[in-house]
Amino acid sequence: MVAPRQRLDATRRPPSDTGVSRSRSQTPKGQRTREAILQAATEIASTEGLEAVSFGRVAQALGVSKSGLFSHFPTKEALQLALLDRFRTFFVETVVEPSDATPEGLPRLWGLCSSWLRYAETTVSDGGCLFQRVASEYASRPGPIQDLIKELTQVFNGRLQRRIHMALEAGHLKPEVQPLQLAFELQSLMGSANGAFQLFGHPGVFELCRRGLASRLESVMTPEAPPLEGL
Amino acid sequence: MVAPRQRLDATRRPPSDTGVSRSRSQTPKGQRTREAILQAATEIASTEGLEAVSFGRVAQALGVSKSGLFSHFPTKEALQLALLDRFRTFFVETVVEPSDATPEGLPRLWGLCSSWLRYAETTVSDGGCLFQRVASEYASRPGPIQDLIKELTQVFNGRLQRRIHMALEAGHLKPEVQPLQLAFELQSLMGSANGAFQLFGHPGVFELCRRGLASRLESVMTPEAPPLEGL
Repeated sequence: MVAPRQRLDATRRPPSDTGVSRSRSQTPKGQRTREAILQAATEIASTEGLEAVSFGRVAQALGVSKSGLFSHFPTKEALQLALLDRFRTFFVETVVEPSDATPEGLPRLWGLCSSWLRYAETTVSDGGCLFQRVASEYASRPGPIQDLIKELTQVFNGRLQRRIHMALEAGHLKPEVQPLQLAFELQSLMGSANGAFQLFGHPGVFELCRRGLASRLESVMTPEAPPLEGL
Repeated sequence: MVAPRQRLDATRRPPSDTGVSRSRSQTPKGQRTREAILQAATEIASTEGLEAVSFGRVAQALGVSKSGLFSHFPTKEALQLALLDRFRTFFVETVVEPSDATPEGLPRLWGLCSSWLRYAETTVSDGGCLFQRVASEYASRPGPIQDLIKELTQVFNGRLQRRIHMALEAGHLKPEVQPLQLAFELQSLMGSANGAFQLFGHPGVFELCRRGLASRLESVMTPEAPPLEGL
């Protein structure tokens, strides 16, 4: 695992926008169209994979002509990257930010795990986590999409490591805990639950994940640590 | 996770052999040719993915005509399945069987983890675990290849669970340990290390995995348990 190159930031300008007609996408109507395109593309990616996202499929889903899409996204890859960037924003707003409100120390680390679990369980009805599906699909395919997957993976790992540091500073974790090591272990449980759900479709795997996360943290908590909430 | 439907068995007849010309493949020369085809196909799959395994590519690698391959494998899928079945045999012989020789109880469970780690570290020079690569590639593609991936995943999980049971019976693990839960946690660390290596190419992740496996087991060992060897 490598340290993240940049902070998770929901407001960051999508890297995929390079070359996009800003004038068209920046009007209110243009923004609504762009959002509708990305929503349709996300639905295709969630059920069939990112490779299945094409101008033809999206135009068909929206009942518009392909030419109307080009003014928003110059290439298929720009559309795919914008879709992933929209997922990043959703993930930050759904998983990361809610846990920022929890008290510092172990509660904020556990808050991140808990909000991830809530997010993961909401993906069950959509066939699983979009990011997991794309990460598998592009695991052996170098390029800008794989680069974005690597970046999101590293950024989440960095966020976990910083919260472990905070919990150590608060005296809630035993001093021998190594943030890099514990972050790998927690992220392993999350990623594996997503992967197992993708392959087998049994949502019970998220309960195994919850218990795994909790028991790993309980084994390194100090007597001063507040209990893990919502177990 | 679902209980495995059958035991790992290195001598089991490959499911992919259905329709294969047994007369050709059963002569000593035929067996050597079959092995050469599978070796060439495995090298292609290891570097480019299973989908890249085609009769044309394998024939080119071996310097033979495509027609010579059809008498051994009637279809591309039969060749791909036979390649995975050969991997299963290799995995059983390399990872599972060596650990059968370790003393019963926790040493045999840790022996399975250790021999998996040795195997994983040998894959570093080949770009990672073949099974991990294929599992990612076919995670969203139902069919016989995905079925075989699911089966191998479940069978390894079942093997872990049985060894956890044995360690419980030997009094080496705390009685509250649940084999399904602990097997999920150990397998998560292994799968995530493989996945992270596939994506980032940093072999240090296997050391994170080793420490993760050891600390998880140490947290549930009884005072009667022998120490984990080779740490």
